[in-house]
Amino acid sequence: MIVVMKTGSGEASIQAVVRKLKGNGFQVHESRGVERILLGAVGDKSHYMDLALEAMEGVEKVIPILAPYKLASREFKQDNTVISLGDLEIGGEEIQVMAGPCAVESREQLLDIACMVKECGARILRGGAFKPRTSPYAFQGLEEKGLEYLADAREKTGLKVVTEVMDTRMVETVARYADILQVGARNMQNFPLLKEVAKFDKPVLLKRGLNATIEEWIMAAEYIMVSGNHRVILCERGIRTFETFTRNTLDLSAVPIIKQLTHLPIIVDPSHSTGKWKYVQPMARAAIAAGADGLIIEVHPNPSEAVCDGPQSITPERFETVMSELKKISAVMDRTI
Amino acid sequence: MIVVMKTGSGEASIQAVVRKLKGNGFQVHESRGVERILLGAVGDKSHYMDLALEAMEGVEKVIPILAPYKLASREFKQDNTVISLGDLEIGGEEIQVMAGPCAVESREQLLDIACMVKECGARILRGGAFKPRTSPYAFQGLEEKGLEYLADAREKTGLKVVTEVMDTRMVETVARYADILQVGARNMQNFPLLKEVAKFDKPVLLKRGLNATIEEWIMAAEYIMVSGNHRVILCERGIRTFETFTRNTLDLSAVPIIKQLTHLPIIVDPSHSTGKWKYVQPMARAAIAAGADGLIIEVHPNPSEAVCDGPQSITPERFETVMSELKKISAVMDRTI
Amino acid sequence: MIVVMKTGSGEASIQAVVRKLKGNGFQVHESRGVERILLGAVGDKSHYMDLALEAMEGVEKVIPILAPYKLASREFKQDNTVISLGDLEIGGEEIQVMAGPCAVESREQLLDIACMVKECGARILRGGAFKPRTSPYAFQGLEEKGLEYLADAREKTGLKVVTEVMDTRMVETVARYADILQVGARNMQNFPLLKEVAKFDKPVLLKRGLNATIEEWIMAAEYIMVSGNHRVILCERGIRTFETFTRNTLDLSAVPIIKQLTHLPIIVDPSHSTGKWKYVQPMARAAIAAGADGLIIEVHPNPSEAVCDGPQSITPERFETVMSELKKISAVMDRTI
Amino acid sequence: MIVVMKTGSGEASIQAVVRKLKGNGFQVHESRGVERILLGAVGDKSHYMDLALEAMEGVEKVIPILAPYKLASREFKQDNTVISLGDLEIGGEEIQVMAGPCAVESREQLLDIACMVKECGARILRGGAFKPRTSPYAFQGLEEKGLEYLADAREKTGLKVVTEVMDTRMVETVARYADILQVGARNMQNFPLLKEVAKFDKPVLLKRGLNATIEEWIMAAEYIMVSGNHRVILCERGIRTFETFTRNTLDLSAVPIIKQLTHLPIIVDPSHSTGKWKYVQPMARAAIAAGADGLIIEVHPNPSEAVCDGPQSITPERFETVMSELKKISAVMDRTI
Repeated sequence: MIVVMKTGSGEASIQAVVRKLKGNGFQVHESRGVERILLGAVGDKSHYMDLALEAMEGVEKVIPILAPYKLASREFKQDNTVISLGDLEIGGEEIQVMAGPCAVESREQLLDIACMVKECGARILRGGAFKPRTSPYAFQGLEEKGLEYLADAREKTGLKVVTEVMDTRMVETVARYADILQVGARNMQNFPLLKEVAKFDKPVLLKRGLNATIEEWIMAAEYIMVSGNHRVILCERGIRTFETFTRNTLDLSAVPIIKQLTHLPIIVDPSHSTGKWKYVQPMARAAIAAGADGLIIEVHPNPSEAVCDGPQSITPERFETVMSELKKISAVMDRTI
Repeated sequence: MIVVMKTGSGEASIQAVVRKLKGNGFQVHESRGVERILLGAVGDKSHYMDLALEAMEGVEKVIPILAPYKLASREFKQDNTVISLGDLEIGGEEIQVMAGPCAVESREQLLDIACMVKECGARILRGGAFKPRTSPYAFQGLEEKGLEYLADAREKTGLKVVTEVMDTRMVETVARYADILQVGARNMQNFPLLKEVAKFDKPVLLKRGLNATIEEWIMAAEYIMVSGNHRVILCERGIRTFETFTRNTLDLSAVPIIKQLTHLPIIVDPSHSTGKWKYVQPMARAAIAAGADGLIIEVHPNPSEAVCDGPQSITPERFETVMSELKKISAVMDRTI
Repeated sequence: MIVVMKTGSGEASIQAVVRKLKGNGFQVHESRGVERILLGAVGDKSHYMDLALEAMEGVEKVIPILAPYKLASREFKQDNTVISLGDLEIGGEEIQVMAGPCAVESREQLLDIACMVKECGARILRGGAFKPRTSPYAFQGLEEKGLEYLADAREKTGLKVVTEVMDTRMVETVARYADILQVGARNMQNFPLLKEVAKFDKPVLLKRGLNATIEEWIMAAEYIMVSGNHRVILCERGIRTFETFTRNTLDLSAVPIIKQLTHLPIIVDPSHSTGKWKYVQPMARAAIAAGADGLIIEVHPNPSEAVCDGPQSITPERFETVMSELKKISAVMDRTI
Repeated sequence: MIVVMKTGSGEASIQAVVRKLKGNGFQVHESRGVERILLGAVGDKSHYMDLALEAMEGVEKVIPILAPYKLASREFKQDNTVISLGDLEIGGEEIQVMAGPCAVESREQLLDIACMVKECGARILRGGAFKPRTSPYAFQGLEEKGLEYLADAREKTGLKVVTEVMDTRMVETVARYADILQVGARNMQNFPLLKEVAKFDKPVLLKRGLNATIEEWIMAAEYIMVSGNHRVILCERGIRTFETFTRNTLDLSAVPIIKQLTHLPIIVDPSHSTGKWKYVQPMARAAIAAGADGLIIEVHPNPSEAVCDGPQSITPERFETVMSELKKISAVMDRTI
């Protein structure tokens, strides 16, 4: 890190900072310009956050040079992480599409959709049993009953199952049913939950928080990895901006950035990001063209009867069209689907 | 709510929407213009989110008219909610200042600060035992030991204690020690946590999420209230914007807006919002001038030695100055401190 | 529009609003619910902004129903606008790529780049003669000399020329040299400039402002169209958000939205939006996959010697790769390049 | 500035960067860590933007150390700039309130308001003759006729006049009538306009752009100052964020920040930032408590009849209340009004 000392900082202030840095195991290089004195500190990057150097006299600012994450970093591991899940792989040559209803509504509904999305080429079934809803008056999910239906649909179709877990107390239960544990956008910095999902031998789908910088998102992955679970799948699902025409703003640049900074797979959620089914199709194509490893898409046979997120769900017919377009885009990207 | 039907929607589409609305207990008024047909629906506002009308054929958009919250609303309860906590009140005529270190570091540190802030006029002690940190490598708090020190400082000083709880599994423990349960910004939409804190007979300090609209913030309060606990204190602590000079952007307009829309007390956190001790003093003054019911301020005897958030902590000397300025501003506002 | 009257508004307040609406040529429908009274007003949508109804007693809010633009609207003109420019078309079946240096630096530099980008399949040359720079100390462009070089490169290569105009006093001059007049992001709401560019018989490339909603952007196009020039090309170039890893956040969802709301062509600028050459290639692919009609890309033979925006410029070699990838994506989209 | 070289950059890349820096007059200090090589460059900060170092091989990023502005900087001039305008001062001990209608509507309207605001203690009259409106269908101002009425009101009341100029071609005309030239938020980075207003011997009121960082805003002031006019008054008027309950988000932290970074006076606009008259009063108080040198407030005798911005205008009666409250807050700040 670089510590920038203010013009006119006395020698005593400078030496106090140098002492503190050395005392914490850093090597220090001084560089004295006319207007500023810079102290370059080389040492363990994971410690600098707790030094509170900005609170020391004479310090104008502290500039980190190295990324604060390590295990998730492309520098730490140069090869792409490919996550195996039975006979399928996430982050490999094959693009994975996770599809299904926003919420599990009933055994029949789920099984119907599961069969349909499987036929179109999806290999992973999504469906919410515990639903994080802005309003306490909105449908909160079928809870454990929903998990049972998911497991049931898996058994009948051979699809893998991804579903969200919101509460540290429920991780064990959800892990009993799901193949992939999803941490939702609102919980990206729910640190106890990140530590808890890391304890189970299941890949974690980590959605980007609505207000999370890419660095904070990678740090959330680092929480899971440092706790022992390296099978993290990142999911871009839109960030909150001033634009309100879409529910959120899908940040597709995050795809090549994550590929550059980390070795983890990244998928895209065109349903929650745009919030309108009309834009799911073009954004799904764009995500694959940008280099994403997969997609998670909300599909419902009758969106206007869906108990949640109907407006952003596409019908099975449209999903079929989407999949056939994605096949062509995947081919251009030298990938399969 | 108003359902706007697209130009050229057939009669069948219109009638399907009308049927669905009526089937859900709404009264419907039609208004046919040249370019659009509007359906005004009057009924239980808490149900409309699950109707998925936007997914129906012919529907252009759905516009809610009534606020989606009820218990928190000024229309539901016209008088200000004043929360009693022993001999002090929050939301009443007296302005309350909560002060203390970011994190509890040791028994002595905490007791020293507690005595100092009490002497300056604060009546509530803040201090983190469980710390939500962006990095897994940063100090995570003293945990239950920290809670003990807080209870100890309370006993010795008579100050009330506010501290954060992050995990549903720990609410009972924290509630055993704290006078006010704090739900942090990152957990504002941690719905299981909101439901859990509602179960204890303690006021809840609910910080605004970094990306939360005012409406979503009030909905989070509604989650607590609908679960049985009406003693919610809102806390504006800055939102995330493009400006990076401050840690976040303190949205002081939220103060008069919350006062207009709800009956709940609102306090302001000038420490986390700005992230720099230099701006704590002017923003504390501005918050009271805007009509806030209180403040929560980070104070540390030696900010550069603080284990967290040193750069935004003020010294006890400066805290004394702040309090003396706030006394004068409070007087202008016809309040005491 | 819908005027929502507060609970308990007296009859006099309601009638005052009704009178004002009728006096301005609106038809009014009343809808009285238990908690609110709604007044639906049908009339000329372009007038409602000046009515200041929110300032009237009893009015809670005013909700516009119709979009405030007309000429740009897909409802006004259902077919796509295809802009002819000599033998090429923008918005038609062929995807157009505009390429060239950020700033015109010299006659030779420009001609070299022009030849290269032409060879790779670009048909329009971009290059700044007047440069809007954040710093007054940065290079401000070659001005009229730069325009001459652009015209010169056009004559030698047959490429069309697009270049920015920033000052109402210079529009006539720029129009003498350029084939397309570019209005930059910072000038999207420079209303005198919008009116001025409308006076010349040249297509206008209108970049989205960094903080502009899609509706405001379309309104800026409407300013040009209402002044008589209907040949407007919209250009998405990233919006400002909290994410700072990229220069701005490219909002690709804007592509299908613009296609839905308007009949105007839309292109994408992957260079300015990301600010880093590494992300130009994936974002260019994604833009075409999302349905864009073209791209504008910064190309420089030696980015580290470029006088401006070197970090986001790609080399001619990379541009060749980009173009060959775009050919494949275009084919998937049933378009040519 | 610091140039961070990637791990594994070859010696040739490093030396190429060093050569380029030295060739541009910089002194270079190397600091070689295990994971990165840092090159500290000391020289003329105003040149670094054009070096395009990020485009050179091996360069990971470039970190500026010094602020890019000079004349506006508190380091350049330590004393506050106090701008004299006849017998009044802006930035001195007296707080200045600029008040008046959004738009000049008629000679009588303006004179009436001018007399009222003067009586309440305002010494500067605001009023728009040229109005930047989002819609081409909205009232665009009385133009030169409006300027005449403003001059007329000045003559009759002795108030100074501030009014907006939007077009480089009109600066001379506006300068003939106005005492202070206002550059609006949408034109903060209209660089030709900034250069043009600098040519006249009038103070410039420079509003912060809706998407402008504090640094960019100061750079816009620097444009005016470097062109010869040092009498710049900054005006915080809200930035665009995801919150839509207010028109924009008033960033009051900008007040102490501008005071720290620059020597220029800063005022606050509580009318445009909030967009609702209800919040003007608390935000006006808060602005002065935060340390602002003044305010600009929209006042209209009959807001619901105002031709623009009625919803955010306050009545003369309320303005009187505001002024009496501001007197008390000013006294706490050891200032007069």
